[in-house]
Amino acid sequence: MPSDLVTMDKIVSLCKRRGFVFPASEIYGGIANTYDYGHYGVLLKNNVVGAWWRAMIQERDDIVALDSAIVQHPRTWEASGHLAGFTDPLIDCKTCKKRFRADHIEEGQCGRKPSKKPGETPECELTEAREFNLMFETSIGPVKDAGSTVYLRPETAQGIFLNFKNVLQFARRKPPFGIAQVGKSFRNEITPGNFVFRTLEFEQMEMEFFVAPAEAQQWHEHWLKARMDWYTELGIRPSHVKLRPHEADELSHYSSATSDVEYLYPIGWSELEGIANRGDFDLTQHAQFSGEKLEYFDQQSGERYVPHVIEPAAGVGRSVLAFLCDAYDEDDLGGELRTVLKLHPALAPVKVAVLPLVRKDGQPEVARELHAAFKRAGLQSEYDEGGSIGKRYRRQDEIGTPYGVTVDHQTLEDRTVTLRDRDTLTQERVAIDELPGQLSARLAAPWRSPKLAA
Amino acid sequence: MPSDLVTMDKIVSLCKRRGFVFPASEIYGGIANTYDYGHYGVLLKNNVVGAWWRAMIQERDDIVALDSAIVQHPRTWEASGHLAGFTDPLIDCKTCKKRFRADHIEEGQCGRKPSKKPGETPECELTEAREFNLMFETSIGPVKDAGSTVYLRPETAQGIFLNFKNVLQFARRKPPFGIAQVGKSFRNEITPGNFVFRTLEFEQMEMEFFVAPAEAQQWHEHWLKARMDWYTELGIRPSHVKLRPHEADELSHYSSATSDVEYLYPIGWSELEGIANRGDFDLTQHAQFSGEKLEYFDQQSGERYVPHVIEPAAGVGRSVLAFLCDAYDEDDLGGELRTVLKLHPALAPVKVAVLPLVRKDGQPEVARELHAAFKRAGLQSEYDEGGSIGKRYRRQDEIGTPYGVTVDHQTLEDRTVTLRDRDTLTQERVAIDELPGQLSARLAAPWRSPKLAA
Repeated sequence: MPSDLVTMDKIVSLCKRRGFVFPASEIYGGIANTYDYGHYGVLLKNNVVGAWWRAMIQERDDIVALDSAIVQHPRTWEASGHLAGFTDPLIDCKTCKKRFRADHIEEGQCGRKPSKKPGETPECELTEAREFNLMFETSIGPVKDAGSTVYLRPETAQGIFLNFKNVLQFARRKPPFGIAQVGKSFRNEITPGNFVFRTLEFEQMEMEFFVAPAEAQQWHEHWLKARMDWYTELGIRPSHVKLRPHEADELSHYSSATSDVEYLYPIGWSELEGIANRGDFDLTQHAQFSGEKLEYFDQQSGERYVPHVIEPAAGVGRSVLAFLCDAYDEDDLGGELRTVLKLHPALAPVKVAVLPLVRKDGQPEVARELHAAFKRAGLQSEYDEGGSIGKRYRRQDEIGTPYGVTVDHQTLEDRTVTLRDRDTLTQERVAIDELPGQLSARLAAPWRSPKLAA
Repeated sequence: MPSDLVTMDKIVSLCKRRGFVFPASEIYGGIANTYDYGHYGVLLKNNVVGAWWRAMIQERDDIVALDSAIVQHPRTWEASGHLAGFTDPLIDCKTCKKRFRADHIEEGQCGRKPSKKPGETPECELTEAREFNLMFETSIGPVKDAGSTVYLRPETAQGIFLNFKNVLQFARRKPPFGIAQVGKSFRNEITPGNFVFRTLEFEQMEMEFFVAPAEAQQWHEHWLKARMDWYTELGIRPSHVKLRPHEADELSHYSSATSDVEYLYPIGWSELEGIANRGDFDLTQHAQFSGEKLEYFDQQSGERYVPHVIEPAAGVGRSVLAFLCDAYDEDDLGGELRTVLKLHPALAPVKVAVLPLVRKDGQPEVARELHAAFKRAGLQSEYDEGGSIGKRYRRQDEIGTPYGVTVDHQTLEDRTVTLRDRDTLTQERVAIDELPGQLSARLAAPWRSPKLAA
C-alpha cells in the first residue's frame, strides 16, 4: 500500500467539494456506480484525453483517428465472441432474493440476515450459477422483435475492426499502422464500485495497431514501454505504476499475451490500462462472419496476410483517478493544513489564477485586464476576488492551478505582480509585460513531479 | 435552394472517399442511420467541438463545464415529460406489415406495392395511429424487472438540470450563469435520414443559461446573436444561415419562445441549432419530482426565485455537415476540375501539408524535418511523398488543408520552399527559417470565407 496520505475518501471528498465529480442523479437518490463530471473534472478529463490524442495522432504519422457508433450491427458481437462469452456467473438465493456473483460469493452477504454469508444461513437456498451477459440490450424501431435487438458496445475496439478495410482503402495505410478512438462503452456489471474506477458507463481510449505477424512481439514491447512512459511523463511517480504480465490462465480467449499497466490506487495495485497482443483473432472472426476479406496484400512483396493486432486500451476515468491520486498532497503551511493537487501543468484544469489582493484601489481592474490577456493567449485562466488571499490560494491549490498571479498596491506603482508557484510556494515579482512570456515558458518546460522523492 | 454546386451526394461521396464519414457496420450491411467518423472526420469534429468549448468556457467567465452520464435515474424522464410525451404517432399496415409515421403517411410507400401510397392500395388495412416513445430503453442488472428499466438520454440538457444545485453550491455560481455540456444522445426514430443530419445516436453541444426571470428575454436575444455570430465567424456564409422564430403552435410544452438557427443544406433550410427560452419549467418539475429546492436565494437582495433558462442546443453532426457543405467548392484548374473544401483554418483537419517535389535528391529528408518541426510546434501537419505533386495538392484540397509547403531542388540550394495557399492558389517562396512564424500568423489571422461573394 502507498506510504501516502491519500485515501479514496479524501479523493471523493475533494472531487465533490471542488466540483470535479458528482454522483449522478443525486437529487433522485443516485444511480448505481454512475458519476457526472463537474467543471474542473471536465477540464482535467479533456486534458487527459487531449494528451492521449497528442501522443497517438499528433506526435506520430502511423496512426489515424476514428469515432465509431456505440450501437453497431448485432452480428459484431457474435463475431467478437461477446454475445456468447461476455458473461458473469450469478447465483440467486431463493429465500432472500439477492443475487451474487459466483466468484465473489464469499464476500456476499445474505439479504435476510446481513451478518451471515450466503449458504451459511440455514434458510438460504442458492441456485446453481448461471451465466448473465454483461452487454446492455435495447432495440431499434418502435416495437421489440427478434430482428431489432441491439447492444450498447462493451468496448470501443470492435468499431475499429469493422473499419479496418475502410482505413486500408481510403486512408491508404499499410501495416504497421494504428487506428485510435476515444468513446463511451457500457458494461452491465452487478458488483462495480470504487468511485470512478469501475462505472456502468465509462470512456475508453483504445488503439489497435495492425502489424505483420512476425513483428507482433516487438511492437507489443514497443507499446508496453510507450504507454508506461506516457503516464510517468505526465507526472505519475514511477514507483506507483508497473507492468504486470497476465498469467496463462488469465489471458482472454483472443490474446496470446497481455500486460496490465497497474497503478497503486488507494485500493491497492489495480488495472489502469491493458496492453494485449490480440493476434489475428478479431479480423479473422469478422472476415468469417461478414464474408469480407480482412487482410493486407503487399503489392511489392506479393505477400498476403491477416495483420496481428497490438492493443493499448486505457480507461479515461481510471486515468483521471490515477492522476488525481498521484497529485494529491497535504502539507503544513505555518501550522495550517494545505491540500494541494500537484498535477502536471498540461493536465491542470486551470493554468493560472489572477487575484487582486484587495477588492479596491484599482486592483480588480488591472487583474481583470491580465485575466483577459491570458484568455486571449489561449491560457485557461481564472479570476477570483472573493475572500482572503490565503483562502483563494487554498482554493487554487485544491484544483491544482500551477501558477497564481497577485495584483497588489505595488502593481499600481511599478506594473509588477507576484507570481506564485503552487509546488515550491515561491513568490517572485515579475513585470506585467514579461508575464505572458514567463508563464508560457514555465508551462511548457520539462516537468518532474515534485512528489518524485516521496 | 442554394445556387451552389453542392449536393448531398457529392458531400457523401467526398466524405467516404477521403475518410471523413463511413456508414457504420458496413461489412455487415450497415445499420439504419448510423455513421462512423474516419480520421479527417474526427479531426474536423474535434475542431468544431473545440471551437464551441472555446466560445462557451474559455472566452467567458460565466459558464462552467459538465459531463453527465447517458443513463440517469428514470425519474428524470418522468419529471422532464419525456416518458409521457416524447413520442411519434405511428400507423401499421396489417397487410404489408410496414410501419409509418402518421404525420408522414403521405410520403410513405406501401410495402407490398411500393409504387402506391398506403391507403391507396385496395388491400391496405391501416391501424389507428398509436404513440410510440422515442427513448431507447434498457435495464440495469442481470434480469429485466419493473425496477430496473432505464433510458438512454434523448437530450443532454436534463443532466444539466440535475446538477443545477451542485453548481450553485460547489462552483459558487449565481445567475446569470451557464452550464455547458457536449455528449451523445439517442432517439429511436423510424424515419430518420439525410446522412449525418439525423442519426439514431448523435452528439449535442448544449448550454443551459440560468437567469433572473425578468432578464430572460434579453438573454434570449443575447444568445440568438452570439450563436449566429459563432457560425459566421467560423466561415458559414451569412446568406446560408438564418434565424427562424417558432410559431406558437410549434413551441415545445416547456418553451415560451424558441428560434431555430437554420442552415441552407442541400435538402433545403433545416434546423442547425435550437435556441429556446425554457422558462422555469425544468427546475420546477425536477424540484417537484425530487423534493429538492431548486431555486436561487440572493443573500444581498433577500430575493428568492427559480431561475429561467435560455438554451442554445446545437448538434455536432449537423454543424459538421453545415461546415462541409458551406466549404465545398469546385473550380476549373486549367481545364481540370478541382474539388476543394474552403474550411476555416481553425476547423481544417490538417493545417499544413509538407510535400517533397520528387522522392530523391535529399528532398524527402528536408521535408520530413519540416514536418517534424511543425508537429513539435503543435500544428497538425501531414507529410506526403506519394504520386505527382498535382495529385497530392488535389488530395489536400479535398480535405481542406489551408497551406501546402513544397520542398524542391531550389530548397537544397537556398533553404527556401514554396508556400501554397489553398484558396488563392498563390505560391510564394519563403525562407525555411521564417516559415513557422509566417504560418502561425496566417493561421491566426482574421479569416473571411473566400466564398462570401457567392
